[in-house]
Amino acid sequence: MRHRKLRMGMVGGGIGAFIGAVHRMAANLDGQIELVCGAFSSDAKRSAVSGQALFLPENRVYASFEEMITKEKALPKGDRMDFVSIVTPNVMHFAPAMMALENGFPVIIDKPLAFTFEEAKALQAKVLETKLPFAVTYTYTGYPMVKQAMAMVRKGDIGKVRKVMVEYPQGWLSTKVEDTDQKQASWRADPARAGISNCFGDIGTHAANLAEYVSGMEITEVLSEIRATVPGRILDDDANVLLHFENGANGVLSASQVASGEENDLKIRIYGDKGGLEWSQKDLNTLIVKDHGNPDKIYRTGGDRGGYLYEEAMQHTRTPSGHPEGYIEAFANIYRNFAEALRNYAEGKPADTVLDFPGIKEGVQGMALVKAVVASTKNGNVWTKV
Amino acid sequence: MRHRKLRMGMVGGGIGAFIGAVHRMAANLDGQIELVCGAFSSDAKRSAVSGQALFLPENRVYASFEEMITKEKALPKGDRMDFVSIVTPNVMHFAPAMMALENGFPVIIDKPLAFTFEEAKALQAKVLETKLPFAVTYTYTGYPMVKQAMAMVRKGDIGKVRKVMVEYPQGWLSTKVEDTDQKQASWRADPARAGISNCFGDIGTHAANLAEYVSGMEITEVLSEIRATVPGRILDDDANVLLHFENGANGVLSASQVASGEENDLKIRIYGDKGGLEWSQKDLNTLIVKDHGNPDKIYRTGGDRGGYLYEEAMQHTRTPSGHPEGYIEAFANIYRNFAEALRNYAEGKPADTVLDFPGIKEGVQGMALVKAVVASTKNGNVWTKV
Amino acid sequence: MRHRKLRMGMVGGGIGAFIGAVHRMAANLDGQIELVCGAFSSDAKRSAVSGQALFLPENRVYASFEEMITKEKALPKGDRMDFVSIVTPNVMHFAPAMMALENGFPVIIDKPLAFTFEEAKALQAKVLETKLPFAVTYTYTGYPMVKQAMAMVRKGDIGKVRKVMVEYPQGWLSTKVEDTDQKQASWRADPARAGISNCFGDIGTHAANLAEYVSGMEITEVLSEIRATVPGRILDDDANVLLHFENGANGVLSASQVASGEENDLKIRIYGDKGGLEWSQKDLNTLIVKDHGNPDKIYRTGGDRGGYLYEEAMQHTRTPSGHPEGYIEAFANIYRNFAEALRNYAEGKPADTVLDFPGIKEGVQGMALVKAVVASTKNGNVWTKV
Amino acid sequence: MRHRKLRMGMVGGGIGAFIGAVHRMAANLDGQIELVCGAFSSDAKRSAVSGQALFLPENRVYASFEEMITKEKALPKGDRMDFVSIVTPNVMHFAPAMMALENGFPVIIDKPLAFTFEEAKALQAKVLETKLPFAVTYTYTGYPMVKQAMAMVRKGDIGKVRKVMVEYPQGWLSTKVEDTDQKQASWRADPARAGISNCFGDIGTHAANLAEYVSGMEITEVLSEIRATVPGRILDDDANVLLHFENGANGVLSASQVASGEENDLKIRIYGDKGGLEWSQKDLNTLIVKDHGNPDKIYRTGGDRGGYLYEEAMQHTRTPSGHPEGYIEAFANIYRNFAEALRNYAEGKPADTVLDFPGIKEGVQGMALVKAVVASTKNGNVWTKV
Repeated sequence: MRHRKLRMGMVGGGIGAFIGAVHRMAANLDGQIELVCGAFSSDAKRSAVSGQALFLPENRVYASFEEMITKEKALPKGDRMDFVSIVTPNVMHFAPAMMALENGFPVIIDKPLAFTFEEAKALQAKVLETKLPFAVTYTYTGYPMVKQAMAMVRKGDIGKVRKVMVEYPQGWLSTKVEDTDQKQASWRADPARAGISNCFGDIGTHAANLAEYVSGMEITEVLSEIRATVPGRILDDDANVLLHFENGANGVLSASQVASGEENDLKIRIYGDKGGLEWSQKDLNTLIVKDHGNPDKIYRTGGDRGGYLYEEAMQHTRTPSGHPEGYIEAFANIYRNFAEALRNYAEGKPADTVLDFPGIKEGVQGMALVKAVVASTKNGNVWTKV
Repeated sequence: MRHRKLRMGMVGGGIGAFIGAVHRMAANLDGQIELVCGAFSSDAKRSAVSGQALFLPENRVYASFEEMITKEKALPKGDRMDFVSIVTPNVMHFAPAMMALENGFPVIIDKPLAFTFEEAKALQAKVLETKLPFAVTYTYTGYPMVKQAMAMVRKGDIGKVRKVMVEYPQGWLSTKVEDTDQKQASWRADPARAGISNCFGDIGTHAANLAEYVSGMEITEVLSEIRATVPGRILDDDANVLLHFENGANGVLSASQVASGEENDLKIRIYGDKGGLEWSQKDLNTLIVKDHGNPDKIYRTGGDRGGYLYEEAMQHTRTPSGHPEGYIEAFANIYRNFAEALRNYAEGKPADTVLDFPGIKEGVQGMALVKAVVASTKNGNVWTKV
Repeated sequence: MRHRKLRMGMVGGGIGAFIGAVHRMAANLDGQIELVCGAFSSDAKRSAVSGQALFLPENRVYASFEEMITKEKALPKGDRMDFVSIVTPNVMHFAPAMMALENGFPVIIDKPLAFTFEEAKALQAKVLETKLPFAVTYTYTGYPMVKQAMAMVRKGDIGKVRKVMVEYPQGWLSTKVEDTDQKQASWRADPARAGISNCFGDIGTHAANLAEYVSGMEITEVLSEIRATVPGRILDDDANVLLHFENGANGVLSASQVASGEENDLKIRIYGDKGGLEWSQKDLNTLIVKDHGNPDKIYRTGGDRGGYLYEEAMQHTRTPSGHPEGYIEAFANIYRNFAEALRNYAEGKPADTVLDFPGIKEGVQGMALVKAVVASTKNGNVWTKV
Repeated sequence: MRHRKLRMGMVGGGIGAFIGAVHRMAANLDGQIELVCGAFSSDAKRSAVSGQALFLPENRVYASFEEMITKEKALPKGDRMDFVSIVTPNVMHFAPAMMALENGFPVIIDKPLAFTFEEAKALQAKVLETKLPFAVTYTYTGYPMVKQAMAMVRKGDIGKVRKVMVEYPQGWLSTKVEDTDQKQASWRADPARAGISNCFGDIGTHAANLAEYVSGMEITEVLSEIRATVPGRILDDDANVLLHFENGANGVLSASQVASGEENDLKIRIYGDKGGLEWSQKDLNTLIVKDHGNPDKIYRTGGDRGGYLYEEAMQHTRTPSGHPEGYIEAFANIYRNFAEALRNYAEGKPADTVLDFPGIKEGVQGMALVKAVVASTKNGNVWTKV
């Protein structure tokens, strides 16, 4: 597999779907992966239209994921897809992921891992059993400066972590847009399709994942206040959560979809007994490195072509410093690393430790966090184990 | 009193004290107030040295606040001080404030109002009884763009307030500096001098006051986790607090003295059902005005000489836009407005509603918040009425 | 050509070359183009190694551009490349571009268009003669917010343009790195490979192109001071240029490679009689819109999912606002638009006016500017017609 | 004079005048100076009204500067003013300054020093003859971080200076406001009151002074293009100037009053062979320190209470880091240092080298620059010696 592109089959993501298009661009970027087949919609006609727009041959565009997995498996090894990318809404994650694993196909799946915690545990069991490569696209850990932050904490550069502040404000649900024909809003606000939480489940888990990734620690307990702010809304659109981490550090997580005017302003600050770090998606190529009594330092993606960045950052950077990287590049880092993992897997080699990506463990932890956060509020804003 | 400067007597604030010097600069700035006497230290010799450095005549430099109040009161009306400024450590607030009021002198006092909630209530009773002008220097509400934010919320520009995020990270207590000869640190970390809380009491109350001032609502309930992060420290150096406001809005307050590398980074974001506002002390002359679906607007102190700012902001601005105002100017706004209130009081006029300043109500609320926040943590991080 | 990917052949850009890799990622991103062949190096062995790493079949990896063009032309129409991408150093631009055109292949080429102004004019004549699509990758005009700025000026939103300030500071040649084995530096500092100008030719032309694109006007006269700052350097590493535009507006262009610590900080400000615009590559997803006496407005890529952006910006945006786009996306906009132009050309349709890209005119103007700027300094810093 | 406040007499600056009020606040701030008398207007009645508003006794409010200087000189030494502050429009600078010097009074005067270069030279001769302390309020060199930048360049921290970029864009004259009743605009646009240049004379000289102060070098040659952009305007409202410095460094200065939407955005960048510095009035408490290949460092006023700032910065800072200083504080640094110089002068001591302030030399150089810049444009944009 080293001497050819990897072949991707996609479930969901028909033309017009936001996240499906992002997955494809991320897969395309580095020229390591080619889309060879797909079941883009549960509507066979719509799937076909999408397949044509994506330049796929008709016989590789399927009417369902079941058909895709079955027929692709039947193809000769040199032709069939190497892995499945799943980009359906939450409620449609489990079935294709499980079937892919059962048929020997590695999986890369959009977050959250599943619709319920139980589904997540079942997938985890299957992954452990099959040992197949499995990725969950918690995108934000793909940014070079997030990698740098993670590496700095691991190497002790800020000392023992004491406090984490992480936030993810959005404003797009400030009004009841789910009553309009906004497609995203309507399924995200619907418990039958989104699950037990909207705001925390969608973006709170991203913030939590970022906090865990950078700190190198799991969140062990949460105390939350989540709520539906907009009258008539069922699921939460706002979440304030106190955090406890493994080592005794604490933190605050604030996520909102009713922070009018905010875009997607994920931001993390982490403080240890020797210094602090600050990163924000709005200025994603910058990492502020703090050390009390000394000037803050501005670390930059690419590092002024200098040598001050760790390998973890440099290996996830495509251009010299000053050529801004973006969201798709972070996403592509997950695909690129997943591709590398597949090749290592095919060759029986262990996974690369620098070219890491979020996997089944992070997927299950995300679901566990949703469960605990919802329970904490339901039980009166009390500390709840994750 | 319209045709002369107001005469100020100062308690505390000997040469070398940070906050005393700030009060004097704030009083000086607009040429409305002159320092005429002081009891700068409980050590008569040190008081005298300070008085000399401040160009005061020897007979107006006193060895104690009791002596100052008594002797000044005995002076002819045309000579004696008009009001008292109290800038002693927390534990020394109550006695001089009460004695000043009892002797008919208006008071301006550094926050917190008192050492205990009970002292605060006693002062409040005396103020209500005497009706004397009384100011508590919650400085940050003196910034022009904070005034603008307050006015915009009052006038409904962002609609019904839903969520408040306020934070005040500092890093100066990241290490155990109270064990060195850092004077500030040693008294602030000492329960006998600082009271029942350090971090929340010192800076958390500033953040809470800012949130209440801008939102136009009192915080009614808190759920806190405060703690001493640095080993061996007694009082809290970190505070995470969930907030409930009068109208059902909620919020998060995060204050820290162990956020290594941070200076004094007070910041507030407030979201209503029609828009949002963001202000940060680091960029104090800017107010970001948000409205989902439209571009953010950058409001600036002085307003590009244009007309888009409210009177509440313009009346607290000294220079055309582009000439940055700072911390001392915000502080001076409190002194300037207090001076105006004294003149109105002397003339039997009501206080000016635009030239407002924090008073006894805000002082008592600050003490109530400290009490509730400390109790919430002590009782296991539970909702506690303020 | 609507129902298949376009087939790209590449000249230059062997593995390890910066700009070749960028071109490939830009071509890959949208899944509209596939690399089918290449002459990646004048060294046949190195070309083969690159071809293999790019997963190309051996028989489509050529030892020279002449071989590539000749052999591809001989392939059946359904197999052969659709266009040529040229990413060699400046001195190697003309020959492959001319041969491609002469053999009926559209060309996309890295800037500058050619090594000399005469070569540029010859290419222009050939393009006009053949009418083949031709793109020159002045990347920075591919950013969504640059498109928005361009459109706003065209539509009169800032009134008649009066002044343009454009700058491009870099620091990477602050020391004599061309004496080390830094490959980029050694050819850029060498007149035999870079041409008559280094700093102005490399980055000054980018700044000038940006100024012309946004203002909608050509620069008609320049007065320059360019020089080699670092001792022993032959070509200019710094350029300060006064500008005159068609309509009487003037401007300042400052480019430098010895601005120690700067990355790639391209920035433009443009002022008209009704307002101003500011854009900087460091914060590429933001456009500041100014109008004296009113608050600045922050326009953002994607526009908060709102409707305030022009089609020119929205058509060059891949993700909702808050998902930062980057340099490769801007570059990919040129490739995507070039692909669209090829399809329109194949169908005999006119080029799309919204999906524009820099072409032969911009390429020739860039060369003319280099010539005029060099002459202005040589003649004693005098106004020189472009 | 060590044991009392210094007594200031003011010429110009009646109530309502912008710069007079700023001078008074600057003089007030540190409690080192008291206003004792003034000739606030050439209209005796208006002067009296201003004096009353400033709480001055009637007999110390004069109808003219001649009366003030004459009568004050006749007072006993223990009563009379110690120095004169001159804040009249440009055309009224010379006469009071010269008369004050001739009568033995030190002078602090707003910039520009005089109306013509010849007046400036005459004042210089008188200062050299009388040896009286003399200050010209080029305000921007009073900022702590500008002092730090100046000190870093002096001490060689960025090596040999190579390039200076300085800019001062404003937008307030984007329209023909001098035809309205805007007082500032009407005299600044009038050659009879403002002199031979408006834009360069008013703000270009500030930018030039800043460049010279930070670089530690005089500008020796200029090549300018200044012009009146707005139809019907006589004096320049826009200036682009190429600069040559003593040591061979070059630079660009751009100043404008028609940069619609800009406030007062003075900014300097200076690059040496070992690093670079960047400072902007918009973020005045920050100095970015650059060094190629390493992260930028963010130096802050007050220095995180740490020790990384030079004495030159710390001696001009009033508050701990994180309490933002502003424009008035920078202005007050000039007054504070001038007061210190007066005391040293009275005691026969040399001036303090750290507590520096702009004086007669800077005043004359400002006038020389105006003359050279105007001549350069008049002669066809040619290099002109200063």
